[in-house]
Amino acid sequence: MKVSALLGERFKEAPSSCAIDSHKLMVRGGYMKYVGNGIYSLFTPAKRIAKKIENIIREEMDNIDGQEVLFPVVMPASLWEESGRYYSIGSELCRFKDRSGNGMVLGMTHEEAAVHLARNTAGSYTQYPFMIYQIQTKFRDEPRARGGLIRVREFTMKDAYSFHTSTEDLERYYDRCFKAYERIYKRAGAKNVVAVKSDSGMMGGSISHEFMLLTDIGEDSIAICPECGYRANMEVAECSVENEPGEVLPLEKVSTPGVKTIEELEKFLSLDAAKFAKAVVYRRNKDDSYVVVFIRGDLEVNETKLRNLLKEEIYPAAVITEDSGIVAGFIGPVGLSKKCTAVFDSSLKGINSLVCGANEEGFHYTGMNIERDVGAVEYADVAKIFDGAVCPACSKPVITVKRGIEVGNIFQLGTKYTEAMNMTYLDRDGEAKHPIMGCYGIGVGRLMASVCEESHDDYGPIWPISIAPWQVEICNLRCTDEKVSAVSDALYEELCENGVEVLYDDRDVRPGSMFADADLFGIPVRAVVSPKTCERGVVEISLRDKSLKTEFALDSAASEIKKLVKELLANYDI
Amino acid sequence: MKVSALLGERFKEAPSSCAIDSHKLMVRGGYMKYVGNGIYSLFTPAKRIAKKIENIIREEMDNIDGQEVLFPVVMPASLWEESGRYYSIGSELCRFKDRSGNGMVLGMTHEEAAVHLARNTAGSYTQYPFMIYQIQTKFRDEPRARGGLIRVREFTMKDAYSFHTSTEDLERYYDRCFKAYERIYKRAGAKNVVAVKSDSGMMGGSISHEFMLLTDIGEDSIAICPECGYRANMEVAECSVENEPGEVLPLEKVSTPGVKTIEELEKFLSLDAAKFAKAVVYRRNKDDSYVVVFIRGDLEVNETKLRNLLKEEIYPAAVITEDSGIVAGFIGPVGLSKKCTAVFDSSLKGINSLVCGANEEGFHYTGMNIERDVGAVEYADVAKIFDGAVCPACSKPVITVKRGIEVGNIFQLGTKYTEAMNMTYLDRDGEAKHPIMGCYGIGVGRLMASVCEESHDDYGPIWPISIAPWQVEICNLRCTDEKVSAVSDALYEELCENGVEVLYDDRDVRPGSMFADADLFGIPVRAVVSPKTCERGVVEISLRDKSLKTEFALDSAASEIKKLVKELLANYDI
Repeated sequence: MKVSALLGERFKEAPSSCAIDSHKLMVRGGYMKYVGNGIYSLFTPAKRIAKKIENIIREEMDNIDGQEVLFPVVMPASLWEESGRYYSIGSELCRFKDRSGNGMVLGMTHEEAAVHLARNTAGSYTQYPFMIYQIQTKFRDEPRARGGLIRVREFTMKDAYSFHTSTEDLERYYDRCFKAYERIYKRAGAKNVVAVKSDSGMMGGSISHEFMLLTDIGEDSIAICPECGYRANMEVAECSVENEPGEVLPLEKVSTPGVKTIEELEKFLSLDAAKFAKAVVYRRNKDDSYVVVFIRGDLEVNETKLRNLLKEEIYPAAVITEDSGIVAGFIGPVGLSKKCTAVFDSSLKGINSLVCGANEEGFHYTGMNIERDVGAVEYADVAKIFDGAVCPACSKPVITVKRGIEVGNIFQLGTKYTEAMNMTYLDRDGEAKHPIMGCYGIGVGRLMASVCEESHDDYGPIWPISIAPWQVEICNLRCTDEKVSAVSDALYEELCENGVEVLYDDRDVRPGSMFADADLFGIPVRAVVSPKTCERGVVEISLRDKSLKTEFALDSAASEIKKLVKELLANYDI
Repeated sequence: MKVSALLGERFKEAPSSCAIDSHKLMVRGGYMKYVGNGIYSLFTPAKRIAKKIENIIREEMDNIDGQEVLFPVVMPASLWEESGRYYSIGSELCRFKDRSGNGMVLGMTHEEAAVHLARNTAGSYTQYPFMIYQIQTKFRDEPRARGGLIRVREFTMKDAYSFHTSTEDLERYYDRCFKAYERIYKRAGAKNVVAVKSDSGMMGGSISHEFMLLTDIGEDSIAICPECGYRANMEVAECSVENEPGEVLPLEKVSTPGVKTIEELEKFLSLDAAKFAKAVVYRRNKDDSYVVVFIRGDLEVNETKLRNLLKEEIYPAAVITEDSGIVAGFIGPVGLSKKCTAVFDSSLKGINSLVCGANEEGFHYTGMNIERDVGAVEYADVAKIFDGAVCPACSKPVITVKRGIEVGNIFQLGTKYTEAMNMTYLDRDGEAKHPIMGCYGIGVGRLMASVCEESHDDYGPIWPISIAPWQVEICNLRCTDEKVSAVSDALYEELCENGVEVLYDDRDVRPGSMFADADLFGIPVRAVVSPKTCERGVVEISLRDKSLKTEFALDSAASEIKKLVKELLANYDI
């Protein structure tokens, strides 16, 4: 491909709306164009990267006996009514009516379609296990599209669905898929990807993992133990704390006029927040009833944990209504209105004397002892894990919270979908059973952007050769010079004939501008041809990651470059 | 791939809803599954065929300097408002609101997206011409989905868009694309594909061609001249007839009580229908006003021609309202209500004396001479061409009307979209101009089904090896026999290692059932291993199209099969 013919522009500056480096560089480099909120068109360089990532994924899925199929983007709503997700998923599921007034949805994942495809054709246990996958466009009406291709509404995704006759078999396959994912990230050149246990959210099921590419701009938080290697998504990372029991004191009501926040109370009582039972108020979506979480004063509530505990949707109570019986700013577990559900976070366990609200305007209790003053309560883990928390695996207080981008996820779904959609098979014993499912997703565009985020400098992406849009870029620094152009043309042709993917910058632009563009193209191997190099009978070779700068003699340049490309590719050939 | 592991079932019978052979066989063979009206999931065999077709298309598009890009499936309505198609296209364009209430559409073609992608990055004439294409899912809310993958609502399509600075350049590129299309059909094994001039309909533009695969089940009609090779879509095929002028007679009103139809009139007057000026009544969509077409009594109106003539939407007048002044059954051009627009088809030209309605209940005219009794009228061609019509090219009355499936189309769009969406470039002379566009589409699934329609027998598809899901099928006729299985397994492994694509039927089923399935898989080369063949040290080889039946010695079977596959592939290697 010649740059003179390539559609797309390179820019010196990115629009101010680009907040992260990968987005900036992929806009500046002519990879993508904004079409609408969370919707982009891809120019040829990005499409080439996407195809390479798709091929890596395809090979790895085929390696674990996956069968590539194709599900529809547009599906009848009735299919989603069968699984129940038509009702349980909010407005991120795009719903509309077709010309005949039939309800339709845009696929955001394809569990329903997978069960629909398989359910009448796998009626005997002898046909299990099997895995089907597709690489297809999805639409999720994401409320917070941002970060370029990191969080979009329309995206290309590989989604795979496996079907099993036993949990053990699912676990075996899950493990194979786990390893295939590790290979995919390695082959695609994503370096800092870690698997973390995660919350399976709306997908249903129990065990699940997210593959997180660690980066400061990630929007997910992961608890990591540097001692024992424990890793978990914040939503499932068990938050344990070590409490000093302290003295047992009598329950005493103290006047705290106008002192409502933890900070004010710390000052007023000269006591550390860790000695308080802080109240955080939520309401249930279904009936607006109140849930009050009591948690150690220095900790925060993790709403996903709370949601999973209650098994229903809740929202933070911005306003507390009068009929609730709750005295805002002075809420405590002793004498709390019976209309509220109280949740006690494990962080309060073992503290003999706590400060808490007295459920009376202007008063708090000190010396509150939960067992003595409230009674036997069940503690639950609903706290956000934090830097320095106790590792749930090795018990050392060294948890580190890191940020990451989710670049893939795998779920053990169980029978949620096969039950709801009545997919059965006859088991060895003649009994009809529901197959057990797993599902496995990777977003192609997000992986591309994440690799860029991880692998770039100020001047552009540094694409791993396994997914680079082209392997080699030839910079013809003087296209008006016949000799220089003849050498460049010949090198281009010889490399192309030898199956090397070449981008050839044949434009009449200044070297500075050509190199700036080359940095934005981020192609691993750069071959520079100029009057000087021609005079000396060489081609200047450098790697985009600066790990090599050398010269090849003109007459063997093509074969040397081919060899270099092969060596670089071998690094990703695992 | 082993058949024992392949998801999908083969059936003896197709559902009665399948009207055409390709649909029947692709359902019976486990290629596709109905999800909703015009919406299907594809099993692995169909997905593999689709990928091969896509790769052929991709190679040919790259060969004519196409740049692969990706446009969104879901687009903001505003983009389609810019081009005006948001308003001009009916309910086949799927419109909906996103969670924020913004209007969105599902892409049915991508002219708007192509102009959007290119418009700010091709500002100089030096950057032209260029072509961008994608292979992506489309949704068209087709009112008459039918024929399996032939006419669906959701489909995978290659759509390409070229941009030029002169009509000559567009024409040159159009011709290159025309040739690329011919290569695509040949390589995909579609034999009877002809290019015909067509109506460009809602795409705008002037010159366009449809590529038609000729088959009796096609839903399009094409006029073909076996003498000179003239070919045109019915919508554009000029209908010329030879009229005998006949005597000039006086205009005479005759009583024809209750005689309303042409057939009744033929009997009543003992005159041939070719002597009548038949009236066909339409109404305009915009205001329901009347259009009356006068046409030779033995001919039919082609509504597309009429629409193109009037440049507006019309519909057949099922009911004629009283206020129209039209006397149903007795309509004629002499004294026709001034509220109607009269259109005279060219077929009436040169007939000296015609029979027509007298615009009075129970009366017709005979001896009507248009020039004398109506005045100077402009004739237009709005008649449906028919078998035996005069060829517009060579003037011989030998036109044959054939049926075909449209498997691709190419359009010279002109500046319709670039003007509407204000895409400009600076020309050599410094003037801002709108680029001239061409667009080029091929539906992947429709081509697959069309090839099946053209190439099958009663037992299954006969896939051309260039797009066959696998190249070779091994039938192990006795998997319970260790020796037979060892031979089959070894052959399977050796072929796979040698890069041959093999489907291996390793199931414990009767030979009859295995062969029936093999016919449905339609794989070109079949290798049968049985106790008998093992005893004789051979493998039985046959081709699905029955053109070869032979044996290969066991020890060289793999290499012989590989050679055979290579030879077969070479037939499509043009």
